[in-house]
Amino acid sequence: MLKNNPIPTFEGPVCPRPLNHTEQIVMGHGSGGKMTQDLIRRIFQPHLQSEPLLAGNDFASLSLLAEAGLQGTLSVSTDSHIVTPLFFPGGDIGSLAVCGTVNDVSMSGAVPLFLTASFILEEGLPVETLEKVVASMEAAAREANVQFVAGDTKVAEKGKVDGVYITTTGIGWTPAGVEIGGEKARPGDVVLVSGTMGDHGIAVLGARGELGFETGVQSDIAPLNGMIRELLKAAPGVHVLRDPTRGGLATTLNEIAAQSKVGIWLDEESVPVLPGVQAACEMLGFDPLYVANEGKLIVIVPEDQAEAALQAMRQHPYGKNAAQIGRVQAEAPGRVLLKTLIGGTRILDVLAGEMLPRIC
Amino acid sequence: MLKNNPIPTFEGPVCPRPLNHTEQIVMGHGSGGKMTQDLIRRIFQPHLQSEPLLAGNDFASLSLLAEAGLQGTLSVSTDSHIVTPLFFPGGDIGSLAVCGTVNDVSMSGAVPLFLTASFILEEGLPVETLEKVVASMEAAAREANVQFVAGDTKVAEKGKVDGVYITTTGIGWTPAGVEIGGEKARPGDVVLVSGTMGDHGIAVLGARGELGFETGVQSDIAPLNGMIRELLKAAPGVHVLRDPTRGGLATTLNEIAAQSKVGIWLDEESVPVLPGVQAACEMLGFDPLYVANEGKLIVIVPEDQAEAALQAMRQHPYGKNAAQIGRVQAEAPGRVLLKTLIGGTRILDVLAGEMLPRIC
Repeated sequence: MLKNNPIPTFEGPVCPRPLNHTEQIVMGHGSGGKMTQDLIRRIFQPHLQSEPLLAGNDFASLSLLAEAGLQGTLSVSTDSHIVTPLFFPGGDIGSLAVCGTVNDVSMSGAVPLFLTASFILEEGLPVETLEKVVASMEAAAREANVQFVAGDTKVAEKGKVDGVYITTTGIGWTPAGVEIGGEKARPGDVVLVSGTMGDHGIAVLGARGELGFETGVQSDIAPLNGMIRELLKAAPGVHVLRDPTRGGLATTLNEIAAQSKVGIWLDEESVPVLPGVQAACEMLGFDPLYVANEGKLIVIVPEDQAEAALQAMRQHPYGKNAAQIGRVQAEAPGRVLLKTLIGGTRILDVLAGEMLPRIC
Repeated sequence: MLKNNPIPTFEGPVCPRPLNHTEQIVMGHGSGGKMTQDLIRRIFQPHLQSEPLLAGNDFASLSLLAEAGLQGTLSVSTDSHIVTPLFFPGGDIGSLAVCGTVNDVSMSGAVPLFLTASFILEEGLPVETLEKVVASMEAAAREANVQFVAGDTKVAEKGKVDGVYITTTGIGWTPAGVEIGGEKARPGDVVLVSGTMGDHGIAVLGARGELGFETGVQSDIAPLNGMIRELLKAAPGVHVLRDPTRGGLATTLNEIAAQSKVGIWLDEESVPVLPGVQAACEMLGFDPLYVANEGKLIVIVPEDQAEAALQAMRQHPYGKNAAQIGRVQAEAPGRVLLKTLIGGTRILDVLAGEMLPRIC
């Protein structure tokens, strides 16, 4: 019941701990990491379970039409966006709300078609601000070639909500024969990323004035469905697509390793990171592999199509820094291992709590 | 871009007023009434327009499958829920979030199948409270026979959000041949409601302790798809189904009158209202016809099927107080007129601003 989630990341059956009656929600429950998974397993899964949720992808594949003889499935995804500040270098909550959901739907290989948007507004929000956000949604939806088909607006008292929260739900269509999912990585596959890691998280943090210096880093927010279309033409055998958002590359690869029951081995030096992101992370004690992206793609593909996949991404404006960063192996199933710059190997675990709250 | 909305309620083309740069969002923008419509027309419509949105229903009908030769359409609806308090007599934010969206999807005559749920939680929320809400969602979804297929969780700092906000999106399937919509009311049709008006709004207000007395009124929250199924078996020629939520019966009928370009004439004395609701409204200076419902149905049906429709509803637990309350006429197109108890006629207009904030 959650992004990046109902995943068998932990051994053994789902066995909810009894509730501790003094326990409270903390920011880390929204991190997309271990605490989020714990909340899902204990609170959401026992009540709101279904086969598509158990599959553990960021999208649900709905084959409601099989009985009608139609070949293909619906792909559905939803996301609430509570980023603060509303505007930051490279994007805003509007472009984030559209691109985040378009991208999640696209990770099934689906063509995103429709969006719903539901707004919770803060009393006192300048209408001009709202219009800027909505205009940004329009531009992103136009680029992604998706249509808004339903919406809702609520208003909460001043002080609740930081200006505006937006929840988007996306609906796409996956033609028959496309089989892409986090459980399909196989030993021997190659791991690619479409560009530099951590740009979005650092751009938002910079916009909050929390860094104390200028990074010049822009968020990478972008709708990825166009690049995915080109990618799948060049490399139709792709096994896994996923966007490393909350929790970053490390957390997302852990989810895939767990779903596919494989080990994922990364070369640290091959992971592209902008100098500004690297510098900010060093100042703050962050690891860029855990910092969120909003316009990047992880691709896991059989070796014989890896080069074609890489070239297809590099020819697209959103993939010009695409790189091969690792391999899938049978050893260490469920684990992500990093060959470090100094020649060692360390386990890259799931993000535990919250590193950067309110970035999406 | 909004419930109950992109409706040609006003004459002339959509012509957004220029933005006033000091203008701010006020609670009335979330009322579902005139201010909401104004916001939609000026801010959302210019940017987020589409054919399904222009149809002005609470659901979008998506015929993405026509090209594939499939007979029927998807029906999609979304709603954010920010009710305070979270728990009130007869329901809570969880049952509200499920039933509200199930009902909106059902108003097309669709069979609701899938739900997504996205949670924005307040830091410090007792996990026990969250579990109560989620368990209530489970119960409502089971009754409505819908499946949760995707979800998301975000956490905002303490003081933001009142415990939990929930956005649900529903997806249903409308078989070919079912043609129900707010634009289909015809002169001569009969107007029915499935029960008493205003229960939900007064129950929530009572739970806030704002009445100063006990009404004993319970919210009418209920999934209506089961009753609608029986209704459509008995009266397959139904023209309009709609649930009178925010803005109440009066606002909802105005939307239909505008969509269908007909006059709707009501008999005040035939509108069922509980004594506790009537008493509370008199104390507060409210009109129960403008108070929200969450488990009631407006049915507009050709006269020859009206009695069958009424009986089908009365045989269902959620429709035992169903009543005929008025007629559709060619006169006064776009207007709702009320024959009052004292024999006069008054115009029932759309709710202008906000009467009862945060009730859904």
